[in-house]
Amino acid sequence: MAHIKLTEGLPGIRGLFAFRPETAKPLCELAEVLLHQPNSLSAADRELIATYVSSQNDCFYCQASHGAIAAHHLEGNETLVAQVKESPAVAPISDKLKALLALAGKLQKGGKHAQHDDIENARRQGATDLEIHDTVLIAAAFCMYNRYVDGLATWASQDLNSYRERAAAVATGGYQRIPGAIG
Amino acid sequence: MAHIKLTEGLPGIRGLFAFRPETAKPLCELAEVLLHQPNSLSAADRELIATYVSSQNDCFYCQASHGAIAAHHLEGNETLVAQVKESPAVAPISDKLKALLALAGKLQKGGKHAQHDDIENARRQGATDLEIHDTVLIAAAFCMYNRYVDGLATWASQDLNSYRERAAAVATGGYQRIPGAIG
Repeated sequence: MAHIKLTEGLPGIRGLFAFRPETAKPLCELAEVLLHQPNSLSAADRELIATYVSSQNDCFYCQASHGAIAAHHLEGNETLVAQVKESPAVAPISDKLKALLALAGKLQKGGKHAQHDDIENARRQGATDLEIHDTVLIAAAFCMYNRYVDGLATWASQDLNSYRERAAAVATGGYQRIPGAIG
Repeated sequence: MAHIKLTEGLPGIRGLFAFRPETAKPLCELAEVLLHQPNSLSAADRELIATYVSSQNDCFYCQASHGAIAAHHLEGNETLVAQVKESPAVAPISDKLKALLALAGKLQKGGKHAQHDDIENARRQGATDLEIHDTVLIAAAFCMYNRYVDGLATWASQDLNSYRERAAAVATGGYQRIPGAIG
């Protein structure tokens, strides 16, 4: 049971959005800009970064929901999502995405864990300043979303099909058209 | 030197806001709702929670800026801000704020560190569901802001007077009227 009284049947962050619409608005807008609006990093890459950080933070709801969205962008390749969560360094992804995931993994531990070498490694693999910025902010933002969802002990469905169904709608419509889509 | 090319002379999160206005907008709006808009928790209490979490995350810029804003709300009592950062449990503050700071300290470590007893303790001291929610989200949000500021190695002034001057403007005008006021 959640630590505060939330609307029943709304899982994860969606119950929190219904509880406090004033904070839901900027939280959804941030996710929309970082994960859904056009970017030189693909939506799949950005969702994989979000999923990996959520996995490192052991947040079931966020890794299930964003993992499903990442898989949707990857034509249903859930195996690749699992490989990235397990070990980005050996997953069959680009060297650039490996470097960005390594950077995100440092951020998950703390801001000062990201060192000059982590940034330079990403740059050597072709990452731009904007891509480095967005990777850092996606990682930092999911350290917030994950704590928000788990810190209030929200309910999460264990039925992975429910995340797959929702993923298709979010991948297409984004994080602001569907109330409470993020998380 | 920051890890990416930022406008010179803009410290901390302000340089990042100038670099990426699209993410600055929701980040400022979130701070405005959590820290500045009317709330049953005083602005001083909310800024103390932000300052304490930033201190636990060892983020100099955020603890200096929000510590100065907290002190401004406390009629200049910088000693109290220092006492809260040092040890909330023995600082001369209300039992309710002590309980909320203890909860925020758990969140700083991770979402699942916040346990039923931490919430119940806050409730026993009179905290409402909304106050518990906002405390959790302030703590989670500063785990993001702190990582954002330090993860990109932004520059921060060591002159505490510069934070005091800015604090007065933010305490009055909030986080959206002054571009890049948060952080």
